[in-house]
Amino acid sequence: MIRYCLINGVLTDAAQASIGLSDLGLLRGYGIFDYFLVRRGMPMFFDDYLDRFSRSAALLGLELPVSLPELKAHIFRLLEANGLSDTAIRLLLTGGYAEDSYTPTHPNWIVMQHPMPQVPARQHAEGIKLMLYRHVRELPEVKSTNYLTGIRIREALKSAGAPEVLYHDGRCVSESARSNFYIITQEGVLVTPRDKVLHGVTRKQVLQSAREIGIPVEERELLLTELPAAAETFLTSTLKGVLPVVQIDELRIGSGAPGPISTRLGEAFRARVEAYLQQQNLPEEREF
Amino acid sequence: MIRYCLINGVLTDAAQASIGLSDLGLLRGYGIFDYFLVRRGMPMFFDDYLDRFSRSAALLGLELPVSLPELKAHIFRLLEANGLSDTAIRLLLTGGYAEDSYTPTHPNWIVMQHPMPQVPARQHAEGIKLMLYRHVRELPEVKSTNYLTGIRIREALKSAGAPEVLYHDGRCVSESARSNFYIITQEGVLVTPRDKVLHGVTRKQVLQSAREIGIPVEERELLLTELPAAAETFLTSTLKGVLPVVQIDELRIGSGAPGPISTRLGEAFRARVEAYLQQQNLPEEREF
Repeated sequence: MIRYCLINGVLTDAAQASIGLSDLGLLRGYGIFDYFLVRRGMPMFFDDYLDRFSRSAALLGLELPVSLPELKAHIFRLLEANGLSDTAIRLLLTGGYAEDSYTPTHPNWIVMQHPMPQVPARQHAEGIKLMLYRHVRELPEVKSTNYLTGIRIREALKSAGAPEVLYHDGRCVSESARSNFYIITQEGVLVTPRDKVLHGVTRKQVLQSAREIGIPVEERELLLTELPAAAETFLTSTLKGVLPVVQIDELRIGSGAPGPISTRLGEAFRARVEAYLQQQNLPEEREF
Repeated sequence: MIRYCLINGVLTDAAQASIGLSDLGLLRGYGIFDYFLVRRGMPMFFDDYLDRFSRSAALLGLELPVSLPELKAHIFRLLEANGLSDTAIRLLLTGGYAEDSYTPTHPNWIVMQHPMPQVPARQHAEGIKLMLYRHVRELPEVKSTNYLTGIRIREALKSAGAPEVLYHDGRCVSESARSNFYIITQEGVLVTPRDKVLHGVTRKQVLQSAREIGIPVEERELLLTELPAAAETFLTSTLKGVLPVVQIDELRIGSGAPGPISTRLGEAFRARVEAYLQQQNLPEEREF
């Protein structure tokens, strides 16, 4: 049971929490967010997420009303108030209240806490199907709140039996609605798009794992025509970690089951999560 | 002083009105809206705006929780409660409250009233400058709440001395952030993009005026390369009516002053507004 959230730094009853109607996040979709998991009371890869939140804000010309250390302190305060050690945190920053319904003012910032979400175990065990869809996210480097296309096509995804989408521009594939995308070539090279995608925090960790393991990494354009020859494909996201992809539209990838390199990277990522937790050396008062 | 708004049909104090944080309009930019003027207590081109609102909703797979006649009755109720005869109304429909922060549920619908906005008189008298910017709105036929690009470039517009933008895709021009765009060719033909633009209600009225006056109308692709030869250019929107454009980036259009056909269409549009008001034959109780 999550009791509180933070609205502009004020601890607020989550059940009653609301935002005024002139907020530009609501009226004009002018907002950014970020989302991370908390394990044993510790926000995972905390600095990476806060850096990205701050970068997204800057790219929309929004000034964060608090410094990142202050934001951190607020987040720990919220975690303590709610008393859950395994959970998820959503940060939201909007263009603020606008009298003219258009021009950003003083941003509103919100911290919401969610129960730890579960990815169906079957998805990791068996891998999932993706549906190709032609779309390039607007300002893809910004973690904006704009999910018009991703949400609009959810029924088409369901009909296709594909839990996630794979966006492309007719020539290159880019990313999923909430995940990064990768292939392993027949030569054992990991390829993932470099530009016009959101630079995921999990992506960063998984690429580091790959390099440590000795898997060659290429961040570059990834052509649609490279998919049929892929030995393995997978997604990464905060929530999913490394999630094997075994089918893209009617194309079966490899043997149709999660491949060995995806599996190894998934293990390596979980080890990084564990190592991160060990390194943090939680002070006693944060172990609630 | 505007005292009330409507939230899901409930008359609410506008100063206190708010929406819960799990609303998908806020969290995911998943919402549509519409906006129209009210003159002498009468919503202008009311059915056209409600039809478009309903169309936008359908294109995002959102079901309007009230029928259009019920929505009309609610709007009149709000107008009566606030007691202003010249004003603007904003309708908003979102994906509703989502426990998973992603999947649309029962939509929230909101009716907000605003003071009648003013366009600086100088803009109509002298015409304005547009700044070209490469961008295609996501789902352009939908009046969604997504204004990421339009709002993000506002400082660049200001620096350029351009009150509005003109979007293009590298080959064709499409529309402004909140207005439709038109040229008058040297042969006196009105050309305006047909596809990948929002079909404005003012656009519809102005095209009807043009046909009545005997100006040939072409709804088709409008190439960037056609701009230098244009005799006149202008925008239309609910708020602006017909607004002459006299400069696009460094290109001066015609004489650099509002042209005769734009001026005539502006007059014709104002006459249509007047005729609409006459036709409505307001019942006594609505003349507040």
